[in-house]
Amino acid sequence: MNEFPLIQKYFVPLSKQFKGSLALSDDAALLDIPAGFQLAVTKDAIAQGVHFIGTEDPALIARKLLRTNLSDLAAMGAQPLCYFLSLALPKPLSEDYIARFAAGLAEDQEIFSIHLAGGDTIATHGTPIFSITAHGLVPQGKALRRNGARAGDAIYVSGTLGDAALGLGRAQDPAIPSHDALVQRYLLPQPRLELGRQLRGRATSCIDISDGLLQDLSHVCTASHTGAEIHVEQLPISAAARELLNTSPQLMSLIYSGGDDYELLFTLPAGVAAPEHTTHIGTITDTPSVRLLSQGVEISAAQKGYAH
Amino acid sequence: MNEFPLIQKYFVPLSKQFKGSLALSDDAALLDIPAGFQLAVTKDAIAQGVHFIGTEDPALIARKLLRTNLSDLAAMGAQPLCYFLSLALPKPLSEDYIARFAAGLAEDQEIFSIHLAGGDTIATHGTPIFSITAHGLVPQGKALRRNGARAGDAIYVSGTLGDAALGLGRAQDPAIPSHDALVQRYLLPQPRLELGRQLRGRATSCIDISDGLLQDLSHVCTASHTGAEIHVEQLPISAAARELLNTSPQLMSLIYSGGDDYELLFTLPAGVAAPEHTTHIGTITDTPSVRLLSQGVEISAAQKGYAH
Repeated sequence: MNEFPLIQKYFVPLSKQFKGSLALSDDAALLDIPAGFQLAVTKDAIAQGVHFIGTEDPALIARKLLRTNLSDLAAMGAQPLCYFLSLALPKPLSEDYIARFAAGLAEDQEIFSIHLAGGDTIATHGTPIFSITAHGLVPQGKALRRNGARAGDAIYVSGTLGDAALGLGRAQDPAIPSHDALVQRYLLPQPRLELGRQLRGRATSCIDISDGLLQDLSHVCTASHTGAEIHVEQLPISAAARELLNTSPQLMSLIYSGGDDYELLFTLPAGVAAPEHTTHIGTITDTPSVRLLSQGVEISAAQKGYAH
Repeated sequence: MNEFPLIQKYFVPLSKQFKGSLALSDDAALLDIPAGFQLAVTKDAIAQGVHFIGTEDPALIARKLLRTNLSDLAAMGAQPLCYFLSLALPKPLSEDYIARFAAGLAEDQEIFSIHLAGGDTIATHGTPIFSITAHGLVPQGKALRRNGARAGDAIYVSGTLGDAALGLGRAQDPAIPSHDALVQRYLLPQPRLELGRQLRGRATSCIDISDGLLQDLSHVCTASHTGAEIHVEQLPISAAARELLNTSPQLMSLIYSGGDDYELLFTLPAGVAAPEHTTHIGTITDTPSVRLLSQGVEISAAQKGYAH
């Protein structure tokens, strides 16, 4: 199928409520940025066989891609505005695939108040690759950054950790249904946009956990020229993950080294109250290293694992 | 090679002069849009084997990708600000490939005063696919659009037509050197940014010619609810193209149906002077069709060809 009718049929409707998209009919979109705001912009790509399996419902692939970009906006404290999409698909383009992909986007556009503003659909001789550039608004000077953590700050995370990494293993097992709680966490992350907005002016640093708690915490520490101490006993673990860890304790390292959590990791100065549904897991230190403690004893690098 | 050191080594330097990039060290870039301006945003992806051959110098692939996006900004009358880049490359990532790709970007960043502001590098099991999202500034309400052409407006194009399409055939012939003028036009388009700025407030419509003159003119006519008449004798043809057409007259349809020109096609109301280095090629009409005339006689659709 030719690109133009596909765009008209499936993508123009996703742009209709966003004036700046110019109904996808011009060379570029035109964005109006209200006075007093900055534009947060993030771009993430995913490849079949690397970031998604390929057997998922295309609607879920689309939603996860959009949500991982929204998670970056959440980590900056930004409010979603619009996004641009590139689809690279093997020829002949499958109308059914594109229809289901667009249906997934439509569902999440409603949930997160974001709109398609542009992009393109191209053919590839290789595997499918999709990319989104997401735009969000943040009040001038109020964006959350990675570089403001200070020794003594308390470290928090939202939600629970490791579910998606545990779910990834299960997603590849045909015996595990797709509505399994851990599989769902892998397939459909929850960008913490409301939490990001609440943290403006309160958190000294913030990042979304995409590469695993320890890896992303090390990014905050590098940017802030600090270290950190984390206590394994304090890490928030879901009931479903606990159940799985009871029978497979060797998977424990996925809680702190598994990817795809898309929770927010942030730091608060002493005395600043934490928002609801967040957990205190450790403290920013002067020492330039990320230490993981179990009952007060440091877990070695080898034991930490790195599962991504 | 791991993604993080590559980004530090090759991409952070491309972002250094653009404060909003946050040195690629945060979850998103932060753009400041000056009062009185709108942000023009365009996103284009290219796949090896479809949009480029794969044997080109990676520096040229990078520059062409950046320039096709800049051409979209030119067509809106926008001034380049910054861009976001996604690279999907087969594992193991080739440092040499990335180094040459980044060197090409560095060269064009200088020429076009644009800066890298974010993006990502991912692995794929398939063929290389690259995408850029380019951002430009345009004074509020002054963007050039496709939908303003009116019957009686004169139709102009910049530069010469068909060179890139003629060059594409030659680029695949090892006997033709890469500095051949037509091959160069295929490898390295010239975004008409200065012309786009000059056309603000003068042109009633504008588009960049990426899919061939007739195809892109039909986009303008559709958006403007008009038709057009073009005279083959008036089409600007380079000396190199004329020489090739003298020996291969059957290639003539590439002049009006070949892709990759990246010249601007625009319309001016009667009496408005055209900028330099542009050519009057026809007239906007009331009749909803694009007619191509040779010595006053319409060339049939079959003869027009469609080579893209």
